[in-house]
Amino acid sequence: MPTPTTVAWGYYDAAAKPVLRVQSGDEVDVGTLITSTPSRLQGAGVDSADVQQSLRDIVDNVKDHGPGGHILTGPIYVEGADSGDVLEVRIESIDLSIPYAYNAFGPRSGFLPEDFPYSRMKIIPLDREKMVAHFAPGIDIPLHPFFGSIGDAPPAAMGRVSSAPPGIFAGNLDNKELVAGTTLYIPVWTRGALLEIGDGHAGQGNGEVDITAMETSLRGRFQLIVRKDLHAQWPRAETPTHYIAMGIDKDLVTATKNAIREAIDFLVTTKGLTRDEAYMLVSVSSDVDITELVDGNVGVHVMIPKAIFTH
Amino acid sequence: MPTPTTVAWGYYDAAAKPVLRVQSGDEVDVGTLITSTPSRLQGAGVDSADVQQSLRDIVDNVKDHGPGGHILTGPIYVEGADSGDVLEVRIESIDLSIPYAYNAFGPRSGFLPEDFPYSRMKIIPLDREKMVAHFAPGIDIPLHPFFGSIGDAPPAAMGRVSSAPPGIFAGNLDNKELVAGTTLYIPVWTRGALLEIGDGHAGQGNGEVDITAMETSLRGRFQLIVRKDLHAQWPRAETPTHYIAMGIDKDLVTATKNAIREAIDFLVTTKGLTRDEAYMLVSVSSDVDITELVDGNVGVHVMIPKAIFTH
Repeated sequence: MPTPTTVAWGYYDAAAKPVLRVQSGDEVDVGTLITSTPSRLQGAGVDSADVQQSLRDIVDNVKDHGPGGHILTGPIYVEGADSGDVLEVRIESIDLSIPYAYNAFGPRSGFLPEDFPYSRMKIIPLDREKMVAHFAPGIDIPLHPFFGSIGDAPPAAMGRVSSAPPGIFAGNLDNKELVAGTTLYIPVWTRGALLEIGDGHAGQGNGEVDITAMETSLRGRFQLIVRKDLHAQWPRAETPTHYIAMGIDKDLVTATKNAIREAIDFLVTTKGLTRDEAYMLVSVSSDVDITELVDGNVGVHVMIPKAIFTH
Repeated sequence: MPTPTTVAWGYYDAAAKPVLRVQSGDEVDVGTLITSTPSRLQGAGVDSADVQQSLRDIVDNVKDHGPGGHILTGPIYVEGADSGDVLEVRIESIDLSIPYAYNAFGPRSGFLPEDFPYSRMKIIPLDREKMVAHFAPGIDIPLHPFFGSIGDAPPAAMGRVSSAPPGIFAGNLDNKELVAGTTLYIPVWTRGALLEIGDGHAGQGNGEVDITAMETSLRGRFQLIVRKDLHAQWPRAETPTHYIAMGIDKDLVTATKNAIREAIDFLVTTKGLTRDEAYMLVSVSSDVDITELVDGNVGVHVMIPKAIFTH
């Protein structure tokens, strides 16, 4: 659970001190906090009593802030994991901790700052029974909670990196497909992997265009498995229905090319296709979708349907 | 049906001579031809007897080729349509005309020409009973036939434009969502609208990354309605479950911004949201997806779910 001694505020870092040690195969329950502060939430209309005490404690007592804004829970040291491995993160369940979320944008963030050169913040009530968000009168959005950020430590040479841009260590992917029942595969870059989790979203569209989703606090149960048999340069994922290849870069075209190349590599190495066949198969069967446009590095992912493989 | 006198090979053009005149509200059946030639198809393995006679007739007799490669059926003059209106194209049914499709890429086309600097063409058998494509042993792709290109004439000042890049007149959108049961709304730029239809696809992924889908010949039934009450600068669409806003530009970032601005404009003008609310609503509820990456102008579309609107 998030306390002043179990969170990393705004960074992924190979030098960070683990707050928990687990064995490969263990299940862990992880609570994560909304990416905001009590004063901002109350300023936007949240009742003082509805602000989590854990958020108050962390904001009051954590003085070691990284470059980013996310309060991440961890790092978790996974015994046996080391550079060159892959950490398989099975996302078993996700629950909503609080009955509200927020959405906000600012004058220098989001994908259309030239159109919206000012700040707005909106509190969105969440109905956890019906699993819908009451966005506005007449507009209810079905919830699909997921963690915007799940990552391990980047290579030590990268030092302490901001929690905002996703990268080879996964991190702030903001991929709406990573709901309960899905699995994220992350390249491991340092001993123990040093997993951090946070940036809970009650729901989001591909793109996350104004720079926030329905931001909220979540609890998740994860099984963590060290995969010595897998090796990867970029994160991948799997849902009950799709394989997901990912591309991440500052430039949208480069991120898109990376994602498609990752999809081709996946099809060649795991399904035995030739490179030409794999390129063709992506064209005729797989969706190239925008993950997010707003985190410094942008993301693109390719959804490869499992159902096309008949054996 | 496509014959040497009822097709426009490779262009949209306000000066093109109509091949049919219909009233607003009429239904029309339109046959369209695969974007290829008998010699290329036979070279890739299609039996001579399986090449449509209509394709042979057109290739032998049509000498007026536009800059593009698509054999489009039309133009169809819709009585009463004029510049400033919107043409509502209800796509009522789509049937597969032939039991095969092809996929192909070339050294100077597709999204990864630097990785694939050569040509390949593959014939893909279509099972029209089971509605699957036999891509390869062990890989069957569900079919979702749609027309890659549905457009009216561009403004007369643009002259004869290539059938490849989509634009304000719609055209070669290559939007996989436009299956039977959906509706495309196209700004009208000249008297009679001058609708052309073609580039049949048996299925495709978002992005159409190698520059082709499962290319085939299709028959479609369309209801064409002149909408004097609607005005638009860009095409939009609607499925049973989603509204679709579109962005089109040479640059992927600009196309993405255009698509999001179109989505915001749609939400403001038809749902009464403020611009700030619309920007937020797209972020938390609507997918920004890549339509196609390969047609000169690239496309991005925003999928706005209808279900979020409770009344």
